[in-house]
Amino acid sequence: VKGARGVPGGRPPTRAELRILRGLKRRKFREAERLFAAEGVRVVEELLDSGIDLVFALGSPSLEDTARGRALAARLAAAGVLRRTDDATLAAHADTESPQGVIAVARIPDHSLAALEVRGPAVALVLDGVQDPGNLGTLLRTAEAFAALFAAALPGTADPWNAKSVRAAAGALFRLPTVRTSADELLEWLDRHGFTLYGSDPRGTPADAIEPAQRAALAVGNEGAGLSPRIREAAAVTLAVPIRGRAESLNVAVAAGILLYVLTRTR
Amino acid sequence: VKGARGVPGGRPPTRAELRILRGLKRRKFREAERLFAAEGVRVVEELLDSGIDLVFALGSPSLEDTARGRALAARLAAAGVLRRTDDATLAAHADTESPQGVIAVARIPDHSLAALEVRGPAVALVLDGVQDPGNLGTLLRTAEAFAALFAAALPGTADPWNAKSVRAAAGALFRLPTVRTSADELLEWLDRHGFTLYGSDPRGTPADAIEPAQRAALAVGNEGAGLSPRIREAAAVTLAVPIRGRAESLNVAVAAGILLYVLTRTR
Repeated sequence: VKGARGVPGGRPPTRAELRILRGLKRRKFREAERLFAAEGVRVVEELLDSGIDLVFALGSPSLEDTARGRALAARLAAAGVLRRTDDATLAAHADTESPQGVIAVARIPDHSLAALEVRGPAVALVLDGVQDPGNLGTLLRTAEAFAALFAAALPGTADPWNAKSVRAAAGALFRLPTVRTSADELLEWLDRHGFTLYGSDPRGTPADAIEPAQRAALAVGNEGAGLSPRIREAAAVTLAVPIRGRAESLNVAVAAGILLYVLTRTR
Repeated sequence: VKGARGVPGGRPPTRAELRILRGLKRRKFREAERLFAAEGVRVVEELLDSGIDLVFALGSPSLEDTARGRALAARLAAAGVLRRTDDATLAAHADTESPQGVIAVARIPDHSLAALEVRGPAVALVLDGVQDPGNLGTLLRTAEAFAALFAAALPGTADPWNAKSVRAAAGALFRLPTVRTSADELLEWLDRHGFTLYGSDPRGTPADAIEPAQRAALAVGNEGAGLSPRIREAAAVTLAVPIRGRAESLNVAVAAGILLYVLTRTR
C-alpha cells in the first residue's frame, strides 16, 4: 500500500485520533490521558528508539522531503502506527512552527522517586518553577547529557510533556526519568539518599569555590523570580556561575549547564 | 494628557509607523532601514538604558498590568516616543507570543571590526550558521555575560535583529558589539589581533585538556550541520564540552556557555 506521494502504508487518522491530538495541547488532557505529542523528525526518531509506547503518528507529504523523513515514515508504517494526512491538517494539529511533517502520540512513561536506584556518585536536576517550555526542554536535554539520574519537576513548573518542551528536550525526555513531585517528598528522598541540594542563584557562592558533593542535586528556579523560598532554604548553599563579566545574566538552561559541568567535572 | 486606563502621554501611532512595524518582521526591511523591533517590558527597559536611538514605542493597556510596566510607560512618554494603541493592535504587530503590551522600534547600532579596540586578554564569539533566533539571542546573552569583546555573525547565520533573537538576548544585543562580517574579513582580523580561533564540536578535544589562549574566539556552528568547512579548517583546534555522560547532545547555547566558561576561568 502506497499513500499520497509514496508514503508507504498507513491509513488516514480517525476523528477520535484527531480529537486526541487537539486535546493534547492542553495540560489537563495530557495528565488525564497520560499521553503526549512529539513533533519533528529527530524527536520522533528518538521516540521510536526509546521503546516508549507510541500510539499513532500523523505523517504528511512534507515528511517525504528528505531521505531521513522517508526512512522515518517507513519505520512508522512498519510499526503499524502511521496515519496519513495532508500538510494543512498536520500543521493545524501541530504545536511547534516546523513539525516537519510528523507528529507522534505516545504514552507518558511512569517514573517515581521510589523506583529510582542510586549507586555511587550521582547528579540530579530540580525544576523549581521553570516557566518557559523551551527552557524546560533544554534543561532536561542538558541534565541527560550530564548523565543525571533523574529530573524532578516541582509545583509551579511548566509541563515537561508540553510539545515545545518535548521538542527542545531533543529526545532526553524519553530517557531521563522525569518525575513530578512535591518539595516535601523530594527533600525527604534527597536526604534519605545522601544528596546535597544546591540552588542556582546569580547572587550565590561562586560554584568553583566549593568542593562538590558526590551526590548532588541542582535546583533551578523561575526565569524571573528565581528559586522558591522553600527550596532556597533547603539548599545547602546557593551557587552562582563564576564569570568574570558583568553581573551574571544567563539564560536558566545555560547557567544550569555550567553549574552541572562544575559540579561533575572532578568525577 | 492621560490615555486609556491611565497610560500617561502618548498619541496613537501613525499609519506610517504601523507600516514600519509590519515591515520589521522581514530581514530585508530591517537591513534596508537599519531599524529593529524589541518586545517585552524587560527588553524595552534595557533598550532605554542602553542609549540606543529609540524611534517610537507602541504601548497598549496591558502594559499597565504591573507597576514595572506603568513605570516603563511613563519613561517612554517622558521621552516623547510613546504611541498608545489597543491590545489587539499591539498583538497583531508583535513577533513574540507575549509582548507584554510594549513594542519599541530603534536604530540598529553601527559596529565594525575596524572600530574595536583590544587590550589584554579578550574573548569573542563567532556565529557560524546558527539558525534558530532563540538560540542566537541566548548565545549573544551568554557572550555578553562572559564580557566578550564582540560577536561576529557570519553568512548563513540568522539575523541577530530578528524580534525573537532580540527578546532572547535580554538586552545583551544593545551592549555587545555584534558585527556581520565574512569569514575572510574575520579571520584576517583575528590573526592580526593575536586571537586563537576555537571551534565548538562534540567530536573535538575535551576543552579542559587545553591551555586556553589569552585571546580566544569561540566559533559555534549550525544546530544540525555544525561548523562550516571554512571555519573548521581555520580553527586551531575544535573543542568538546568535557562531560561524563553519554555522547554529547547539548543545545548550542548551553555548549557555548560551558566552553566560554572553560576558556575564561583562569583569568
